[in-house]
Amino acid sequence: MSQKLKTKDEHILNLAKLVDGPNSILYLKEDLIAYDCDGFTIHRHLPKAVVFPKNTDEVAKVVRYCTSRGLPFLARGAGTGLSGGAIPINGEVIISMVRMKRLLSVDLENRRAVVEPGFVNLKLTHSIAEKGYYYAPDPSSQYCCTIGGNVAENAGGAHCLKYGVTTNHVLGLEVVLPNGEIVDINTEGIADAPGYDLLGLFTGSEGTLGIVTKITVRILKNPEAKKTVLAYFDEVSDGSYAVSDIVSAGIVPAALEMMDKTAIEAVEAAAFPVGHPKDIAALLLIEVDGISAGIDEQIDQILDICQRRNVREVKVARDEQERARWWANRKTGFGAMGAISPDYLVQDGVIPRSKLPEVLNRIHRISEESGLRIANIFHAGDGNLHPLVLFDARIPGQTEKALEAGSACLKACADVGGSITGEHGVGIEKKEEMRFIFSDEEIAAQVSIREVFNPNNLLNGGKLFPSPGRCVEVKKNIKEVAATKHGA
Amino acid sequence: MSQKLKTKDEHILNLAKLVDGPNSILYLKEDLIAYDCDGFTIHRHLPKAVVFPKNTDEVAKVVRYCTSRGLPFLARGAGTGLSGGAIPINGEVIISMVRMKRLLSVDLENRRAVVEPGFVNLKLTHSIAEKGYYYAPDPSSQYCCTIGGNVAENAGGAHCLKYGVTTNHVLGLEVVLPNGEIVDINTEGIADAPGYDLLGLFTGSEGTLGIVTKITVRILKNPEAKKTVLAYFDEVSDGSYAVSDIVSAGIVPAALEMMDKTAIEAVEAAAFPVGHPKDIAALLLIEVDGISAGIDEQIDQILDICQRRNVREVKVARDEQERARWWANRKTGFGAMGAISPDYLVQDGVIPRSKLPEVLNRIHRISEESGLRIANIFHAGDGNLHPLVLFDARIPGQTEKALEAGSACLKACADVGGSITGEHGVGIEKKEEMRFIFSDEEIAAQVSIREVFNPNNLLNGGKLFPSPGRCVEVKKNIKEVAATKHGA
Repeated sequence: MSQKLKTKDEHILNLAKLVDGPNSILYLKEDLIAYDCDGFTIHRHLPKAVVFPKNTDEVAKVVRYCTSRGLPFLARGAGTGLSGGAIPINGEVIISMVRMKRLLSVDLENRRAVVEPGFVNLKLTHSIAEKGYYYAPDPSSQYCCTIGGNVAENAGGAHCLKYGVTTNHVLGLEVVLPNGEIVDINTEGIADAPGYDLLGLFTGSEGTLGIVTKITVRILKNPEAKKTVLAYFDEVSDGSYAVSDIVSAGIVPAALEMMDKTAIEAVEAAAFPVGHPKDIAALLLIEVDGISAGIDEQIDQILDICQRRNVREVKVARDEQERARWWANRKTGFGAMGAISPDYLVQDGVIPRSKLPEVLNRIHRISEESGLRIANIFHAGDGNLHPLVLFDARIPGQTEKALEAGSACLKACADVGGSITGEHGVGIEKKEEMRFIFSDEEIAAQVSIREVFNPNNLLNGGKLFPSPGRCVEVKKNIKEVAATKHGA
Repeated sequence: MSQKLKTKDEHILNLAKLVDGPNSILYLKEDLIAYDCDGFTIHRHLPKAVVFPKNTDEVAKVVRYCTSRGLPFLARGAGTGLSGGAIPINGEVIISMVRMKRLLSVDLENRRAVVEPGFVNLKLTHSIAEKGYYYAPDPSSQYCCTIGGNVAENAGGAHCLKYGVTTNHVLGLEVVLPNGEIVDINTEGIADAPGYDLLGLFTGSEGTLGIVTKITVRILKNPEAKKTVLAYFDEVSDGSYAVSDIVSAGIVPAALEMMDKTAIEAVEAAAFPVGHPKDIAALLLIEVDGISAGIDEQIDQILDICQRRNVREVKVARDEQERARWWANRKTGFGAMGAISPDYLVQDGVIPRSKLPEVLNRIHRISEESGLRIANIFHAGDGNLHPLVLFDARIPGQTEKALEAGSACLKACADVGGSITGEHGVGIEKKEEMRFIFSDEEIAAQVSIREVFNPNNLLNGGKLFPSPGRCVEVKKNIKEVAATKHGA
């Protein structure tokens, strides 16, 4: 087996033996380059190797090997994360979960399914759709992101307003701890198990406590009916107030999304234009679902509210095709920025819904002060903002300026009692910004939990918590990467 | 100050100085006796003292004092817990939270409220009802239990089927750690804060990680409409299948409760009889809520399902008075056992809904084998069983037999992939039963988290996790208590 490997590196040779030989490991620079970043592309670093285990046992063996040799390591799903959680900043051995991609079981009667971590989010819904069920968390990357990655980042999505983010749908986990132990946390999927909530602790721990190898999730019955409204506003504030009014009326929309003028310009220039008017200030995409009876009354209420808030035009999707087109337009939103800007930085702040107009104003000022355009596409219903800072990394200083503007947007959120991430995670991107919302003591309390499971910090070290030394390094590295990326 | 205290115990004198003097401490045996147990009355033990801090600062001072002197201590709310979590088995200093009972703020726009831990659950709903809001978790003891206690036990309730248990409604916590540090975990109440989910970890940790001194909770808008159905069945299995059918139809009832024949006998003999037929095998109490439009269609579907499952009689509550009467009858269910049995032991298992008929049969057999009657009142919709083992502690051996039967019921739940507690917690009652669902490694992983915050186990030690030595002691103590209770 090992004779096929073009290396004398003992670790590579040993790791290959722990998985399925040469076909289950990458170690040449030309192969590793695809793993030097995830969806957060501003920082890049080559891993030592990438291994592809096919089952929990192989994961545990690789983990035990890395831990015993002091080799840093981390797990990676589809690499769609937006905060750099899967970037091997310490030259980690990457444990790729993409070959562990089976749907292990579906139990319709008790509404749960068991998947391997590399199973793609949207595939779960596709697998159970004809029986009338679906999996609720729907990050925009759901056509390719993995459920394992979703668990690590506690991923959200447009429909998480009504249905909750990933942590509300994870019933059980099998986890390989950094010491190689395999722990079963309620994979039988019983709700609210006794003892400490390890399930909640591991979900959203950004791959720093263990490697998830099996996931029991809740599945939901398809709503009997869905209706979708598109509303165009001449004033951002009118749109914001409509959001508040809808929620205050006691309606819980499945989704309540907002896009501002710059965002609309981008999505209309990209793959799925809808024909939104170019001169509006904001649009709302509002979806309600549930039993058929009563849904029209909710839609009428929403139309009324929009009218009272001076909507320019408001319409209900005529059919599933039109609804799907509106959503495709919205869901490609981040990528669409590429149509109007060479580079963009997506941020992910959360604010109390009532502060929406105030914070949007402040983001507007940050844009003016930095001289960079900032587009806003976001989950308005739960106050989860996504300011997209547009910049050109080829222009000296713009990357730094974009990072500063992004950080200022998060500060604006924190200042009104909000948070620095709703669904993208902290990763390496927002480590320093953790200080906006946590005191040293609060960070220390969290780090002490990491030390229980990951005492040497070999697993995905340097993520999630501020660590001044490492951060300086990361920031230093940014210029080189920006230069490399554009072939300078 | 201290001259008023009738003791020379230095700890008592010192503790009194840390709170509001003699009026804020109990230490005489005749006073302490009221604190020798909680809702789990089978085991009793006197505390060293009971202190009544009035704010976080006083709590922190008491905690620091106890930790520095090696004095065991624990927090207590209303003492309604059903698993013995607040019983001072090590002669703890009890820190009573009943004087920290303020409603600190209500933010209707962002749907949250901040309360002190001694604030009574139902008072929150009463405080915001006229504005059209309520607090969802509704344990049957809600008229007197405190929200702090609810957080410790992750309390559930009849309406948690649709709305989730306490952990789904806690947005932030202020906690005094065993070292006296005060930690703010997201008291601003932003959903899904970054970093590890300390909120989830502390919620349901049964008072073993820290003492909660402030709680930010989610409040909900009152549903526009509510309708309640009462259905009588001649066969338990028909009732069970109706439960499955309702959920399978895609209806999410606000509550879906079941009572069996013995339970009905008890509630009809107690304070709020409804006039249920005495010869039926089971009844279902089903409530749907939401917007008015559509609610009648759901009720029609439910009536249809009941008919198809051979219901003997089914009716919709005519008005709020009738609805309230049905609920009063249900909610006094546990206490009602007193009307038909000198003693009872309530258990709290969870099973996959599909296993309902199988597990109810097994509980029936356990009843026959033990010679003890077992009543069942439970949250059928989420498979949360409450077998109530009826016994007479005055008859030698019956207490032990009841404990054995209760444990066997939990084993039956665990054996079908269920859990040993849904909402009552583990406390001292179900410590050993933790082994039904957790391996040694899984328990060790949890204990290692306790050690982070509570390294000397001075805070509420001997709870939640199996510890053979202590358990033997507890079991030994049972006979004496049983004897004392009945004045033997």
